[in-house]
Amino acid sequence: MLGDTIDAVVPRDAAAERVARERLDRMTKPPGSLGVLEDVAAQLAGIAGSCPAPLPVPAVVAVFAADHGVHAQGVTPWPQEVTAQMVANFLAGGAVVNAFAAELGAEVVVVDVGVAATLDPADGLMDRKVRPGTADLAEGPAMTLDEARQAVEAGIEVATRLATASPCLITGDMGIANTTASAALVCAFTGAAPAAATGRGTGVDDPTLARKVEVVTRAVGRVPTRPSTPAAALAVLAEVGGLEHAALAGFIIAAAAARVPVLLDGAIAGSAALVAAGLCPTALEYALAGHTSVEPGHTIALQSLGLRPLLGLDLRLGEGTGALLALPLVASAARALRDVATFDSAGVTEKG
Amino acid sequence: MLGDTIDAVVPRDAAAERVARERLDRMTKPPGSLGVLEDVAAQLAGIAGSCPAPLPVPAVVAVFAADHGVHAQGVTPWPQEVTAQMVANFLAGGAVVNAFAAELGAEVVVVDVGVAATLDPADGLMDRKVRPGTADLAEGPAMTLDEARQAVEAGIEVATRLATASPCLITGDMGIANTTASAALVCAFTGAAPAAATGRGTGVDDPTLARKVEVVTRAVGRVPTRPSTPAAALAVLAEVGGLEHAALAGFIIAAAAARVPVLLDGAIAGSAALVAAGLCPTALEYALAGHTSVEPGHTIALQSLGLRPLLGLDLRLGEGTGALLALPLVASAARALRDVATFDSAGVTEKG
Repeated sequence: MLGDTIDAVVPRDAAAERVARERLDRMTKPPGSLGVLEDVAAQLAGIAGSCPAPLPVPAVVAVFAADHGVHAQGVTPWPQEVTAQMVANFLAGGAVVNAFAAELGAEVVVVDVGVAATLDPADGLMDRKVRPGTADLAEGPAMTLDEARQAVEAGIEVATRLATASPCLITGDMGIANTTASAALVCAFTGAAPAAATGRGTGVDDPTLARKVEVVTRAVGRVPTRPSTPAAALAVLAEVGGLEHAALAGFIIAAAAARVPVLLDGAIAGSAALVAAGLCPTALEYALAGHTSVEPGHTIALQSLGLRPLLGLDLRLGEGTGALLALPLVASAARALRDVATFDSAGVTEKG
Repeated sequence: MLGDTIDAVVPRDAAAERVARERLDRMTKPPGSLGVLEDVAAQLAGIAGSCPAPLPVPAVVAVFAADHGVHAQGVTPWPQEVTAQMVANFLAGGAVVNAFAAELGAEVVVVDVGVAATLDPADGLMDRKVRPGTADLAEGPAMTLDEARQAVEAGIEVATRLATASPCLITGDMGIANTTASAALVCAFTGAAPAAATGRGTGVDDPTLARKVEVVTRAVGRVPTRPSTPAAALAVLAEVGGLEHAALAGFIIAAAAARVPVLLDGAIAGSAALVAAGLCPTALEYALAGHTSVEPGHTIALQSLGLRPLLGLDLRLGEGTGALLALPLVASAARALRDVATFDSAGVTEKG
C-alpha cells in the first residue's frame, strides 16, 4: 500500500500553473501585488491540474494522536495521560482546534495511532492504534520497522478516505513529548545539531531543555544522517520517530496521490514532512506550510524542504491550529484566481 | 464633530483584558501557546469592555477612494482614470477585495471622498466627495485645512454609521498615486528620510522611484516634522496627504469612539493611522495591523505606532485586501477566547 501510494504521486501540472500565472497577470491588480498568495494560487492550479482550482473548503483536519516512551526521560512537565485527556477534549469540541475549525469552516477528526490508553469508541474518533505509545527512543528503537510502516499506512488510509469528500487536508497532532521525537527526526533528516533543533515545546524550563537535547543527541547518534533511500528513511523513522509522525508522513503522501492540497501545521508536521520527503520527494509539491512555530527545529525543517510558511504568529500549540489559521489565506487565493475580473473584462486601463 | 469624536475615545478596559488573560491561561493549552493571538484576544476584550468579546464577524470594509494631483509629476505609470474604473470594478464585485470579502465573510462599501470623476450613484457607493482629487502636493498644499477636516469627518461619519451594524471595521483604499502621499505623511510624522520611506507602490521602475523620492522630499520640506498637536497634525495632513488618508484617519478615530476594533490594511492605512495618532493617540488602542506590505514606509509607520502586523505576505495591493486576510485570525482569537474549555471544565491535568 505504501509502495502503490508512492507510485501514484505525480508532479504538479505545469501547464495548469502557467495558465494560472497568466490569469494572475491579467487580473485587475498590479502584477505580483498579491505576493505569496499568487504562488499559492498557481500551486493550487498545479495540484488540481486545472485553472481555476477548486476552492479548498470545507477542509478537514486529522489530528493524529499518539504517546511517546521517551516521556520517561522527563523531557516534559506534562503527564502522559494528557494525550488521552486532550483526545476526549477534541471529541467534546472543547479544544482550540475545535474553536478554530468551527470559525474557519473545517471538520475535525481524531485518529488514535498510538495513545497509551484504551479509548472508548466515539463519533469523530478513528481507531488505527498500532501500539499503545512508542518505546523510549532514548534507549533504543521507538518502534519496529513493521510498526512504522503500519503507522504510515494508517495515515495513507485516513487521507485517502478523507480526500474523497474534502478538497483540502490539514495535518493535526497530539502527543505529550512529541517535540522530542520531532527534534530527533529533524536532526537525522537534515544534519542539524541537536542543540539547534531542540526547543522548549510547550514551554519547558532550562534543565528540561538540557535533558531533551541530551536525549536527542543520544537517539540521533544511532541513525545515519540524511537517509537517501525510502528504506533508510523508514528505518530512521522507526528508530527515533513517533507513531503520529509516521501516520502524518503517510497522510502527506496520500494527499499528493489524491491530488489534494495538504496544509501542514507546526513542528510535528514539519518533521513528518521530512519523513514524507524521504519516502517520496514529489509528495511535497502538494504541501503548503501553514505557519512557522517557535520550535527551532520547525524552521530548520521548512528551510530544508523549501517551504515558505504562510503565517508567523509565534504559535506553539500543535493540534493543527496553525495550519487551520492559514486555510482562509489559501481559500482566498483560490477564490481570487476564480473570481477576479481581468483588465479586459472590467474595462480597466493597464499601466502605461 | 471631530472634536466630539476625539473626546469620546477612551482607553481600552484594562479589567476586561486581565480577565481575558486569566482565562487564556486556564484554557486547555500550554500558557502562551497561541502566541500573538493571545494578545489579540485580550485586546478584543479590552476594546469591548467584556470577556469574551463579541466575534468580529461579519465585518465591513470601507474602501475610501480619491485621486491625487501629484499624479501630474509622473510618480506612477497608471493613468488617473484607473481610480474611477476600479471603483466601478469594486461595485461590480470584480476586484480582489470583493473576492476576499466574499470568501472571508465581510461586506464591501465604497466611499468616494475625492475621485476626479463624476460617479453615478450605485448600491454600495457612498458619495462623500470633498473635492475631485487633491492639488499637486509637490507644488503646494494638497488641500485646504477645511477640506482636510471635511474629509476626516466624512470618515468619522462613515465609521459611526457602519459601527452600528458591524462588530469590526476594516480599512480599504483606492487612489492612483496614493503611495506618494503616504510616503510624505510617513516622513512628516516619523522623521524618516524620503529615500527610506518611499517605495515602488504598484511596482514602479527606477526613474519613477527617483521622481517619487524627489517629490516626497520637496513636499516634506514644507512641513514641520513630528507634529505634536492635533492642529499641527491636521495641517501636515492638508499639506502633503490625500483625501482618503484624511477619511481613513477619521474612520480609525470613530471606530475607537464606537469601541469597535478597526483592522488596518497596508501602506495607505498605516500612514493614515499616523495622522489618526496625531489627532487622537488613544484611538490606536482599537487598531490592529492586518499585515505588513512591501512598501517600506509601511514598516516604518507600524514601528512608529508600535503595531505588530498579523500577516507578512509581500502584498502591495491595498483595497483592504491585507486587512481582510487577517480577519479570520482575529475572529479565531475571539472564538477561542469564547469557546475553548478550561483545564477544570475539560478534566485535563495541568503540567507538573
